[in-house]
Amino acid sequence: MQLEFFGTGAGVPGKFRNVSSVALRLLDEINQVWLFDCGEGTQQQILRSTLKPRKIDKIFITHLHGDHIFGLPGLLSSRSFQGGNDQLTIYGPKGIKDFVQTSLRVSQTKLSYKINYVELTNPGIIYKGKKFTVIADRLDHQIECWGYRVIEHDHPGELMVEKLKEDNIPAGPIYGQLKQEKEVTLPDGRHILGKNYIGSPQKGRVVTVLGDTRKTASIKELAKHADVLVHESTFGKGESKLARNYYHSTNVQAANLANAADIQKLLLTHISARYTAKMARELQKQAREIFPNTKVVKDFDLIDIPFKKEEEK
Amino acid sequence: MQLEFFGTGAGVPGKFRNVSSVALRLLDEINQVWLFDCGEGTQQQILRSTLKPRKIDKIFITHLHGDHIFGLPGLLSSRSFQGGNDQLTIYGPKGIKDFVQTSLRVSQTKLSYKINYVELTNPGIIYKGKKFTVIADRLDHQIECWGYRVIEHDHPGELMVEKLKEDNIPAGPIYGQLKQEKEVTLPDGRHILGKNYIGSPQKGRVVTVLGDTRKTASIKELAKHADVLVHESTFGKGESKLARNYYHSTNVQAANLANAADIQKLLLTHISARYTAKMARELQKQAREIFPNTKVVKDFDLIDIPFKKEEEK
Repeated sequence: MQLEFFGTGAGVPGKFRNVSSVALRLLDEINQVWLFDCGEGTQQQILRSTLKPRKIDKIFITHLHGDHIFGLPGLLSSRSFQGGNDQLTIYGPKGIKDFVQTSLRVSQTKLSYKINYVELTNPGIIYKGKKFTVIADRLDHQIECWGYRVIEHDHPGELMVEKLKEDNIPAGPIYGQLKQEKEVTLPDGRHILGKNYIGSPQKGRVVTVLGDTRKTASIKELAKHADVLVHESTFGKGESKLARNYYHSTNVQAANLANAADIQKLLLTHISARYTAKMARELQKQAREIFPNTKVVKDFDLIDIPFKKEEEK
Repeated sequence: MQLEFFGTGAGVPGKFRNVSSVALRLLDEINQVWLFDCGEGTQQQILRSTLKPRKIDKIFITHLHGDHIFGLPGLLSSRSFQGGNDQLTIYGPKGIKDFVQTSLRVSQTKLSYKINYVELTNPGIIYKGKKFTVIADRLDHQIECWGYRVIEHDHPGELMVEKLKEDNIPAGPIYGQLKQEKEVTLPDGRHILGKNYIGSPQKGRVVTVLGDTRKTASIKELAKHADVLVHESTFGKGESKLARNYYHSTNVQAANLANAADIQKLLLTHISARYTAKMARELQKQAREIFPNTKVVKDFDLIDIPFKKEEEK
């Protein structure tokens, strides 16, 4: 599980940062990629990565500003051209279907796959699969905007078959009882406890990706105990008034939120072209004073999301 | 007057060629830039050139396939963001207004300027200004597609005032008569001819930019005696059947057309990603065997369009 950033800029593309898009690579987990936002040029950025558009199974749009959606028609067309045949689902605010369908209709684009549109109306669970659940909630931006919490389901501990064999416990219905953590009496009279033969459960990871937003209450719930939080940082320390006026956040607000929500890692994105590389490092430094595990991401950054270590559980 | 190529690829963006867009730089002539087609990522390509989006006064769309229009909403937004306030005109097939307006409405983009839409219905003159006229005609593609002929008006010869002074011809209403190439009798009895005091007229240049097309009759008229013809070359020598089936042209067809239309310079574009750099040079070589002054263009090529030399007139 990794996050790969294709666009980390704000508003308009710049020489060094393209407009918003980030992929959640779930290739090891479910052989899929989920994309969050798709600004213009996202498909060109993807050409410079190892990601295959046909692996994109879901696209989550945070809001309909052009720098978050104008790359959609082109990406959808190329996915078709490059042999994508599987249905794709687009989640986003009302209007996303109109935009995509008008673009495809006017350009007479025939896709090789079906698009399933989910236009969001109520906060809550928007997707529940075997291994992942996604929750969406509203943020506070100039226009309707959503944040997404991707929850990997916990992986229960496995029955330790090798250990059972070592202890001469014969295979059979007993294994099922042990897996249910029951106490079992063996034919030879031994009493054994299931919990001694079950490995550690693996806690699922949580990744929260927000759209553009002011500081707002829903973020804390979306981000609670997340392994990674992707948060915008359009403004810097001391600019909270500006941020409020333009419906955006500062790096300091994001870092405070990271502490309050007790997350593992904070990734700051949506960096304005006003910030040079040096100033972006300063944004990072200011945020780290509040929340040390912060990174200001750049285009093409690939961020690994490991399982929490034992001692952290 | 120059042509600057921002996208010279076909269908989908590749690592080395972006999707279609070419700018006609008329900065010395009228301080404007005219854009022909606007595939996704055109605004990002423009970031790597000296061109300012606010200088773009007209956009000519050849047809509505995605690789020719999906960059429009983003470019229009950035033109606004970067201080463009002057009205902009978009010429193109019916549907272009629907696409642009839906994109701007859904994304709640407010532009700082007005867009004037000219959806083409009849071939002929679509623009006539002080210095330039533009003619459009239909091509033969899978969907409605247009080619554009940009005609710079001839610059009439100037009255040679220095020569008049040298010959002791006094200023006055006589100058006006001489400029009209009349014969004039001077107070001292001399008979002089206006044509001897008028410099050479400067023949205006002609630039023809086509969209995707099969070999078709209208091209010859659009391209006749052009200084530069921008012609697609989706296929190579020996592939005319494929080209016909897919509503495209070969390099050989374009070169033959260049001869038939008696043009100065042929620029081949819309080069498929199937062609490596080496194969693109081969496309050029094949075309040059028929029409020597041929060039297969690359992204960021800047092609100067000089006035015809005296002896060529």
